[in-house]
Amino acid sequence: MTDYPFLKKAGTPFKDTEITKVAEIIKEADRDNGEITGAGLIGAPLSKSSISHSGASFAPGTIRKALGGFSTYAIEDDTDLSRMTISDLGDVVMHVTDIKESQRRVFEAFDHVYKSNPQWLPIVLGGDNSVSFPSIQAFAKHKGSVGVIQFDAHHDVRNLEDGGPTNGTPFRSLLETETIEGQNLVQVGIRNFSNSKAYRAYAEEKGVAIYTMKDVRDKPVTGLLAEAVERMRERVDAIYVSVDMDVVDQAQAPGCPAIGPGGMDAVDLFDAVSFLGAEPKVKGIEVVEIDPTVDFRDMTSRLAAHVILYFLKAKMKENK
Amino acid sequence: MTDYPFLKKAGTPFKDTEITKVAEIIKEADRDNGEITGAGLIGAPLSKSSISHSGASFAPGTIRKALGGFSTYAIEDDTDLSRMTISDLGDVVMHVTDIKESQRRVFEAFDHVYKSNPQWLPIVLGGDNSVSFPSIQAFAKHKGSVGVIQFDAHHDVRNLEDGGPTNGTPFRSLLETETIEGQNLVQVGIRNFSNSKAYRAYAEEKGVAIYTMKDVRDKPVTGLLAEAVERMRERVDAIYVSVDMDVVDQAQAPGCPAIGPGGMDAVDLFDAVSFLGAEPKVKGIEVVEIDPTVDFRDMTSRLAAHVILYFLKAKMKENK
Amino acid sequence: MTDYPFLKKAGTPFKDTEITKVAEIIKEADRDNGEITGAGLIGAPLSKSSISHSGASFAPGTIRKALGGFSTYAIEDDTDLSRMTISDLGDVVMHVTDIKESQRRVFEAFDHVYKSNPQWLPIVLGGDNSVSFPSIQAFAKHKGSVGVIQFDAHHDVRNLEDGGPTNGTPFRSLLETETIEGQNLVQVGIRNFSNSKAYRAYAEEKGVAIYTMKDVRDKPVTGLLAEAVERMRERVDAIYVSVDMDVVDQAQAPGCPAIGPGGMDAVDLFDAVSFLGAEPKVKGIEVVEIDPTVDFRDMTSRLAAHVILYFLKAKMKENK
Amino acid sequence: MTDYPFLKKAGTPFKDTEITKVAEIIKEADRDNGEITGAGLIGAPLSKSSISHSGASFAPGTIRKALGGFSTYAIEDDTDLSRMTISDLGDVVMHVTDIKESQRRVFEAFDHVYKSNPQWLPIVLGGDNSVSFPSIQAFAKHKGSVGVIQFDAHHDVRNLEDGGPTNGTPFRSLLETETIEGQNLVQVGIRNFSNSKAYRAYAEEKGVAIYTMKDVRDKPVTGLLAEAVERMRERVDAIYVSVDMDVVDQAQAPGCPAIGPGGMDAVDLFDAVSFLGAEPKVKGIEVVEIDPTVDFRDMTSRLAAHVILYFLKAKMKENK
Amino acid sequence: MTDYPFLKKAGTPFKDTEITKVAEIIKEADRDNGEITGAGLIGAPLSKSSISHSGASFAPGTIRKALGGFSTYAIEDDTDLSRMTISDLGDVVMHVTDIKESQRRVFEAFDHVYKSNPQWLPIVLGGDNSVSFPSIQAFAKHKGSVGVIQFDAHHDVRNLEDGGPTNGTPFRSLLETETIEGQNLVQVGIRNFSNSKAYRAYAEEKGVAIYTMKDVRDKPVTGLLAEAVERMRERVDAIYVSVDMDVVDQAQAPGCPAIGPGGMDAVDLFDAVSFLGAEPKVKGIEVVEIDPTVDFRDMTSRLAAHVILYFLKAKMKENK
Amino acid sequence: MTDYPFLKKAGTPFKDTEITKVAEIIKEADRDNGEITGAGLIGAPLSKSSISHSGASFAPGTIRKALGGFSTYAIEDDTDLSRMTISDLGDVVMHVTDIKESQRRVFEAFDHVYKSNPQWLPIVLGGDNSVSFPSIQAFAKHKGSVGVIQFDAHHDVRNLEDGGPTNGTPFRSLLETETIEGQNLVQVGIRNFSNSKAYRAYAEEKGVAIYTMKDVRDKPVTGLLAEAVERMRERVDAIYVSVDMDVVDQAQAPGCPAIGPGGMDAVDLFDAVSFLGAEPKVKGIEVVEIDPTVDFRDMTSRLAAHVILYFLKAKMKENK
Ligand SMILES: [Ca+2]
Ligand SMILES: [Ca+2]
Ligand SMILES: [Ca+2]
Ligand SMILES: [Ca+2]
Ligand SMILES: [Ca+2]
Ligand SMILES: [Ca+2]
Ligand SMILES: [Ca+2]
Ligand SMILES: [Ca+2]
Ligand SMILES: [Ca+2]
Ligand SMILES: [Ca+2]
Ligand SMILES: [Ca+2]
Ligand SMILES: [Ca+2]
Repeated sequence: MTDYPFLKKAGTPFKDTEITKVAEIIKEADRDNGEITGAGLIGAPLSKSSISHSGASFAPGTIRKALGGFSTYAIEDDTDLSRMTISDLGDVVMHVTDIKESQRRVFEAFDHVYKSNPQWLPIVLGGDNSVSFPSIQAFAKHKGSVGVIQFDAHHDVRNLEDGGPTNGTPFRSLLETETIEGQNLVQVGIRNFSNSKAYRAYAEEKGVAIYTMKDVRDKPVTGLLAEAVERMRERVDAIYVSVDMDVVDQAQAPGCPAIGPGGMDAVDLFDAVSFLGAEPKVKGIEVVEIDPTVDFRDMTSRLAAHVILYFLKAKMKENK
Repeated sequence: MTDYPFLKKAGTPFKDTEITKVAEIIKEADRDNGEITGAGLIGAPLSKSSISHSGASFAPGTIRKALGGFSTYAIEDDTDLSRMTISDLGDVVMHVTDIKESQRRVFEAFDHVYKSNPQWLPIVLGGDNSVSFPSIQAFAKHKGSVGVIQFDAHHDVRNLEDGGPTNGTPFRSLLETETIEGQNLVQVGIRNFSNSKAYRAYAEEKGVAIYTMKDVRDKPVTGLLAEAVERMRERVDAIYVSVDMDVVDQAQAPGCPAIGPGGMDAVDLFDAVSFLGAEPKVKGIEVVEIDPTVDFRDMTSRLAAHVILYFLKAKMKENK
Repeated sequence: MTDYPFLKKAGTPFKDTEITKVAEIIKEADRDNGEITGAGLIGAPLSKSSISHSGASFAPGTIRKALGGFSTYAIEDDTDLSRMTISDLGDVVMHVTDIKESQRRVFEAFDHVYKSNPQWLPIVLGGDNSVSFPSIQAFAKHKGSVGVIQFDAHHDVRNLEDGGPTNGTPFRSLLETETIEGQNLVQVGIRNFSNSKAYRAYAEEKGVAIYTMKDVRDKPVTGLLAEAVERMRERVDAIYVSVDMDVVDQAQAPGCPAIGPGGMDAVDLFDAVSFLGAEPKVKGIEVVEIDPTVDFRDMTSRLAAHVILYFLKAKMKENK
Repeated sequence: MTDYPFLKKAGTPFKDTEITKVAEIIKEADRDNGEITGAGLIGAPLSKSSISHSGASFAPGTIRKALGGFSTYAIEDDTDLSRMTISDLGDVVMHVTDIKESQRRVFEAFDHVYKSNPQWLPIVLGGDNSVSFPSIQAFAKHKGSVGVIQFDAHHDVRNLEDGGPTNGTPFRSLLETETIEGQNLVQVGIRNFSNSKAYRAYAEEKGVAIYTMKDVRDKPVTGLLAEAVERMRERVDAIYVSVDMDVVDQAQAPGCPAIGPGGMDAVDLFDAVSFLGAEPKVKGIEVVEIDPTVDFRDMTSRLAAHVILYFLKAKMKENK
Repeated sequence: MTDYPFLKKAGTPFKDTEITKVAEIIKEADRDNGEITGAGLIGAPLSKSSISHSGASFAPGTIRKALGGFSTYAIEDDTDLSRMTISDLGDVVMHVTDIKESQRRVFEAFDHVYKSNPQWLPIVLGGDNSVSFPSIQAFAKHKGSVGVIQFDAHHDVRNLEDGGPTNGTPFRSLLETETIEGQNLVQVGIRNFSNSKAYRAYAEEKGVAIYTMKDVRDKPVTGLLAEAVERMRERVDAIYVSVDMDVVDQAQAPGCPAIGPGGMDAVDLFDAVSFLGAEPKVKGIEVVEIDPTVDFRDMTSRLAAHVILYFLKAKMKENK
Repeated sequence: MTDYPFLKKAGTPFKDTEITKVAEIIKEADRDNGEITGAGLIGAPLSKSSISHSGASFAPGTIRKALGGFSTYAIEDDTDLSRMTISDLGDVVMHVTDIKESQRRVFEAFDHVYKSNPQWLPIVLGGDNSVSFPSIQAFAKHKGSVGVIQFDAHHDVRNLEDGGPTNGTPFRSLLETETIEGQNLVQVGIRNFSNSKAYRAYAEEKGVAIYTMKDVRDKPVTGLLAEAVERMRERVDAIYVSVDMDVVDQAQAPGCPAIGPGGMDAVDLFDAVSFLGAEPKVKGIEVVEIDPTVDFRDMTSRLAAHVILYFLKAKMKENK
């Protein structure tokens, strides 16, 4: 087909020869091409596990699209991702009616990828926050002792009796299964009128470090994170960054199921993931809880794409 | 019905046993239960009085819904509203075609509630800003000399000849009827290109204190309010807080009829109402000018819900 | 509260003293009031079981609202439902993460209601089509040999291996479990390019009667139904009417997950359910597959409300 | 300005020299130009009088825009309106807070126009249905004994005690004031579950002729109208056509406040107004109850524009 | 990648093993695979040529998506397209700022495809109607004497002086360049108030056969087409079917730029293309003028998909 | 018409006698009234030149509407624009299918206006950014040596080979044609992941001054501008301000084609244009790249209106 004049594969976008779009550095992963050694996207399109109605299962698609549309060049520090390759490992295929089986599949799929690709830097695209449990379980199985920096308006340590393993329970499951120790969990951006005293108490008893939005407003987030990373540096072999986009204010991230005012500024989040990306122990990131069906112009997926790009830029510089 | 297995009243939401939602502390008011002694919601679903087309009459419903969905716990200062009760007094029933009668009904209904419940802390849910006149009239009738802190992008002291008692005139009416003295009215957040020299002059002649958005951007709003409250402390018996949500920037409060750029940040407004809630002379609050039919995901009603929660939290602490 | 002037419970609608709205004849069911002997609404807000993303779990709410807003009077044949009572039994409470448990709860809840109320005329509000299996199972358990008239663009006899008990499988499950015999299942409105030869073959082997949209366009639907009912009259003790709203054309029922052109006209569907409602053996109806989150102005829920009203009107006249 | 190259007044549309758009035959009325002798648009942008929230006050604008965008040529009977002039008399300026005063202004303004322009053929653009009372009062004052053909899903003869002169009461007011006699009122398209037995009884006692949607579906609407016109021909000096767009089915007229299924087909309505336009005694038409804020792509205003064009085409041919 | 458990290429849809979706029979065309001998999709995503703002350039994408989602089986006449292959030749790449060059590219690309694949049955996905000129030019260059059946509310024979080769001019261009003779052009569905006397006269002078919507409503469309095809059968070597989706009523095809009431029913259009597909001389079809950015739930693209499927079904049966 | 009681021209807005709306100081320009000596709006409704689909051609209309709705009074510095007159010169009429001709018309029209009105202060309403080339060419032709302050997330110096003169190329064209020298171009707000290293290099080679968003966040924008203006003060005769609204963050300017996070705060932009308006050498401004068809409640046009008002206010004070 390609040698007919002017005919291209359906949907081929406009190409400016002097701009590299992120889409151009994303390559479909192919086992025959050998090990994945750097950043690799993997989608976990599950949201039937959400407490409230959620279309977060569409987010791997919208984040990929937003990501692909930005360019690789960061002018502020003159960094270009254009020579990096981002592998795309595809999406976990979910079961239609068995939610726990879907969560098990996330673990199973991730487990196999980690096993075959020890150098893989996972960029996980949720889905809702319930995928964090199997995702981090697989991460921990292969990385040793693990710490997690969780950006979230909510603790997500709900009891499992009231509804099973939902988007409100992943960190409870991780703590209860001792996948991570409480002292190796850092929660950033916890918000007023969005949590309960009981769950805060639970988290504190487990030794979880909690930074509320007031903390984030009062001090530079990178300072808080430096503190947090320092505390766990000796204790853990690897750190995982979990970004629930609802940590950002509703005006800037309008496409999350549980939106509200008083949240984090997007630029602070970019600074935060830039700081974490530069830390060698940080070995994975996930972005969860975007529901594209209620978003405005995929604004929240565009934000997520920037979160990923700032993280990768920092990783790239760290690796130099 | 309740003893059939798994059957609940239509629309019963998911319940997490370790989280108290604000909905659980809101109780329908019932005269037989005796006097209302604390916070009580009352809706004034009137917007036919608006100069431009407005669906603000739907806001008592959307604010109640947003409010009910948040939780009672404020992690930042470890305060829990869960033992507070918020009475719900219902809505004033408006006349379909007689707007002045509807405004009169607001007065009448409120007057009766104040009379029977001297300890009632009114949380008034507009409706457009026209309801402020009858609402504050009733407040003043029962509280003595009254001051008002008005958050608004606009003076709302329009003449009544051009259109009658609209959402642009409530403070004119309050001043002209001498319900409040000009020196006891404080306007915060007045915005460029949204007012007129004539109305500014009118307000200033009456002695009204005006803080523009520039003032709010240049100094902490709590400082301005401390000043303002201090000035009127000796002169008034009670202070009423009037929040026209259009005081907030259009990006954060997109659901007001008269939106525009350059407005207040939501967190500053939360600080402001927290400051005022902690002041013993402050004895009522209203939230007006949200039109849910043009909002995005009830973002502005969610904001209003937080305004109310921050106010109640401060009140609760004040009462300790 | 009610004796304060002009104060009513929040959200009380305008009342015209000479019009009875359907909302006024719907009464919350209460076991203490004794047996339910007529029409009773029951919601099955489940849609996590859908193959494609669906918000059908919101439909019991929107249908109730649409239904309540219409009036009880049918001018065309001078019938007034105003003296009828419609019980509202509420909604089945679904499990958050266990879909099969949710489906089991539908059965369990319905089973108990049938047991205690043998005269109950169920008006089931889905939810997606997966609820038809437990719903009809419970119906059959209490009614003896059962026939089903299914209005649907699709056969819904998919295999269960590919995704479990979804909105595509209820009639497969009913046939395989021998809850109903194939010869007692009538499918009306089956559409081109929306089904497969394999499933048609499956249905025909089971003896299912299939009327395509061409049949519906070529002959009056009441004629087809008369035929169908006649064939099964001797064989069954009770007939259940299952209405998947996607049987109607996408222009008239835009709020179903699987919309398409070439569907049934709404008035034909009203004629059909009127015909069936008049048949004494017909003892229940369900309306499924409305996703209010993608509908336009609840148009499809309004349609569903009329389907229910035409059915009830016919039942009422039959009972005279 | 016009002699700068390529500069035209802001918003000037594309012009094809071989097509006449209706916009080109609409001329702003100007008293100095003498009497208006043919069709003249007049807007009555009032909807605060509506029982439910309505933006029908925007409809004069959207109907004018839709109308202006169609072309003057009717190919089916080779008729061209291009040599006709449609005067635009502008809009009645409503009072912001006094609804009855607004209705009085409709009467006053129309009264003056009729007085000065006895040959005016009014094309009234509502607004909600409440404007029909003052509009038809003014018509009747100048035309003698008057008959009305009302297309509507509803009787609109509600009592005035429950809410005043609303969009539900105009025909009650006309009958009670004896502006028109019951036997000279014909209601077409009255719908099931949208009215009450009491109001039907009221209308019938007054002698009103009622054609339900069943009548319209069973017989050609022009036949019904021929009958109706014949009956009143001797009794009346002039006939007024009132079109509440909600007479049309919700799929075709989605932008009316009170939408529902089972309504009239648009082409039947075009046939109806074409029939009536050809009748010499028919001397005015109004189109009411379009709320552009809830419409889809001004579909309902486009429909209204066609109603007006079919009416004018028939009038033009009648006048030949 | 594919051998990791549960991982599939991003966006892989749910697969039911007993249903064949149309997506499964669409194969990307590949010159190395030899000649295309049957149906082949080709996109012409151009809409900058439209007189009014149009996003019709997105329609090749939305039609492909809608098409792929339907199944291959037509139950009404027990026909299954599952063994057919539809080639996808991709999209013509348009120039960003040179519209005539874009139109030239359509010609060039199509010309080459026809040359290399004489048995290609083109299924052209517009784009706006301007692509019909180059598309039909290429068709005529390779097929000999050509006739066109045009479904359209509009003549599309506008002069080119007023705006160049737009979506209003393709048939003018075809006639003026003598690509087709006027007597070999049939226009079906021409609508009132959407055309001009001048253009009708132009078309008639050229010998074009015109069927208005009144003709379509009064007689079965297949009868009109039989007549039309018979008249041109001897004169032409091949017939091309051009479907401007705005021929369908606005309620059923809400996503066209120039929507209006009084249009064709979708089922009549399906009958029409079925009739034409069965005619051996008919050797190509195009669907144009869908703007997905203003459509509701891709309803109009779903309609277009059915138009294509009915056409292909008829072709398949013809070829048996 | 005006002397009929209560009748006004269609669409006449509510008038408060003590407020001057900006609409009241905008007067249609009329050559007979002599030279335009101050601010004059001119629309360039072109967006077919955009790389991605854009409805920016509608923005002159929406900006005018937003502008007209604000009032003339700026309370913060007690400035009233009410005695200023803003001329409205209308819109350039674009060619339907010849984009370069449209761009030429912008030049031609502007050229003539500048020639006849040397004192004209152009307020240019785009349209997409491609209009900046002809607009600034005409400006430079009449003003001598010219500098440009460009607010934009993007360099807009793309090569012209890949797509012609688009919204990505205007500053390339200005530099290549030597209309402006690189050292006289200042780009403010350039953003990460939205540009390429190659274009940055191109701009820097030309001597363009680049301030990234990091620069804008780190220092007051007025400081950066003071620097920039100082550098070019001696070199240029006049400065033109080009505002691509996408310089503002997506949460505050959601209606631009290329939205993203991390952008400028609106108030900083107001400060910036206020600073520039006060500079005597600044002699024109343009606002481009608003696509009202994807905006939320014309929020971005309201922002643009404020940009214009702050600029005019500064100009007014400068002229005192
Ligand atoms: Ca969260
Ligand atoms: Ca979370
Ligand atoms: Ca205000
Ligand atoms: Ca106000
Ligand atoms: Ca179905
Ligand atoms: Ca079904
Ligand atoms: Ca009506
Ligand atoms: Ca009516
Ligand atoms: Ca057309
Ligand atoms: Ca066409
Ligand atoms: Ca830009
Ligand atoms: Ca730009």
